[in-house]
Amino acid sequence: MMNLESVDRYRSAFIFHLENKVKLREPQNLYEPMVYILGLGGKRLRPVLTLMTTDLFGGNFEDALDAALTVEVFHNFSLVHDDIMDDAPLRRGQTTVHEKWDVNTGILSGDAMLINSYQFLENYPSDIFKKLTSLFSKTAIEVCEGQQYDIDFESRDDVTIPEYLKMIECKTAVLVAAAMKMGAVIGKASEDDTNAIYEFGKNLGIAFQLQDDYLDAFGDPKTFGKQVGGDIIENKKTFLYLKALEFTKQSERENLLHLYSIKPENPEGKINTVKSIFEESGAVDAAKAEINNYTKKAFSALDTIHLSEPNKRVFKEFGQNLMNRTV
Amino acid sequence: MMNLESVDRYRSAFIFHLENKVKLREPQNLYEPMVYILGLGGKRLRPVLTLMTTDLFGGNFEDALDAALTVEVFHNFSLVHDDIMDDAPLRRGQTTVHEKWDVNTGILSGDAMLINSYQFLENYPSDIFKKLTSLFSKTAIEVCEGQQYDIDFESRDDVTIPEYLKMIECKTAVLVAAAMKMGAVIGKASEDDTNAIYEFGKNLGIAFQLQDDYLDAFGDPKTFGKQVGGDIIENKKTFLYLKALEFTKQSERENLLHLYSIKPENPEGKINTVKSIFEESGAVDAAKAEINNYTKKAFSALDTIHLSEPNKRVFKEFGQNLMNRTV
Repeated sequence: MMNLESVDRYRSAFIFHLENKVKLREPQNLYEPMVYILGLGGKRLRPVLTLMTTDLFGGNFEDALDAALTVEVFHNFSLVHDDIMDDAPLRRGQTTVHEKWDVNTGILSGDAMLINSYQFLENYPSDIFKKLTSLFSKTAIEVCEGQQYDIDFESRDDVTIPEYLKMIECKTAVLVAAAMKMGAVIGKASEDDTNAIYEFGKNLGIAFQLQDDYLDAFGDPKTFGKQVGGDIIENKKTFLYLKALEFTKQSERENLLHLYSIKPENPEGKINTVKSIFEESGAVDAAKAEINNYTKKAFSALDTIHLSEPNKRVFKEFGQNLMNRTV
Repeated sequence: MMNLESVDRYRSAFIFHLENKVKLREPQNLYEPMVYILGLGGKRLRPVLTLMTTDLFGGNFEDALDAALTVEVFHNFSLVHDDIMDDAPLRRGQTTVHEKWDVNTGILSGDAMLINSYQFLENYPSDIFKKLTSLFSKTAIEVCEGQQYDIDFESRDDVTIPEYLKMIECKTAVLVAAAMKMGAVIGKASEDDTNAIYEFGKNLGIAFQLQDDYLDAFGDPKTFGKQVGGDIIENKKTFLYLKALEFTKQSERENLLHLYSIKPENPEGKINTVKSIFEESGAVDAAKAEINNYTKKAFSALDTIHLSEPNKRVFKEFGQNLMNRTV
């Protein structure tokens, strides 16, 4: 088992730092939504990964607190703007920013959060600052591109699996990868090692998102944080859906296309039929194989890194824990 | 007269650079609005100031092209998001991004523009990069704060003149100031000189915005770019309005408050009455005095700079030209 105690230690230190740095100030209408969304909690997965990576590469994890803040504030900026675009009423079980205030407030506070996330890096010396800022910008623009692909896919009926994988890589995985690479840069890892930890994070991030797609349909309603079947209700073209379309025979294919064109008031029947198609078509098996494939890729990248075996094992166990989650 | 030829040379070089760097790429729906808004033209005042400042401080103005791009792309980002917030149909006589596409496209392309504007600075060596990026972030966050104050003022009836001046300083003047300071940093000016040129730009920017308020009401419809009386139609609390409220006697005050609570279908009568109140109350004279005051402050800051007299004169003439405009 990985050392869960250190994860807790990273998380506590991060939250302490967050509360210290993200405070209400004037003009309050700009900063209140920022304090609100960052106070909603969440797993703090990305900032914990930044701190852990600095620590495991022999740096002082406290030196990584500002970079961790950059990653977390950026992530929350993207949630605020995405929630406007998706017209989502809830985030982490609470009212979204644009619902609690209004769309304009969501846009402008989000902008301020994006700019603030750059500013947290200013405590680093200029060479590290430039490395971190460039990596951060590259990642941030990829996240926007991923969101754009996601929006584009809604109105397209010819999305391919490689396109879908590219989309989740941009929208989700690169930020996990960058969170770790920033930690490695601060921990003064070699260039090869920082690149390898990026690959580890990226592939793990893709595996994580594919698993999220799977759990959205097949997770345990008791432990899965979101509504099980939510993607099916929303006709979201996930890996499972695209694979099922590819694998299933003509009659089932038309049934699936029809089910993904309707939004019945009581979705239970639709959810169950779609889940059966996902399983019987082999899409579920394909998803599991792909999750396994990306997890393996992640671990191969990890193998190339120059780190002590115990430290490598912490990364590996963190990855295994993440992929064995049921929530 | 200032050397208008060099201004043209800066502008042409800038537009060439812009067209070279801001190109359509995938995902097209993300980048098309960026190419569109940046192609609408405008005076390119801010990037020209960056290039001019580098040049006058003895640097190579071509070294400042990327920083000029940062400033111009950021400025256009703020226009795209502000136009959403203001529900504006037109920008530079053309359809706004959120009208031509939709609000979500405006939000997301704007985000990408903000991130891109940071990326243009990556060609500078790390010490210059850090100086420019920190200044840029500070400026960008102030622009957001200025926009928030502007929004807040709409629903407040106790806005003071100092608050209004602070708002236009943040929303408009600091970006002009930063555009020039970035040019000075690239031109390797001393710290005192970069700070003084910032003060010059900031005070000139405030004077410019106050003049814009004045011209919005009293400009020549033939030469003023926007609809004359637009601020009055929109009941916008400008310097003229706030000063008129302060100066005018009780009965006129109530008349003004009433006129600023209505939006008549034919606004001609309202515009003319309001303009009379602005003139008779002394608000116009106060505005002219304040414009003069800030212009003088700008020129005092200029006086402290260690530059040859001919080079100082170029800045001064540029400032005088700007303040003598009728458009």
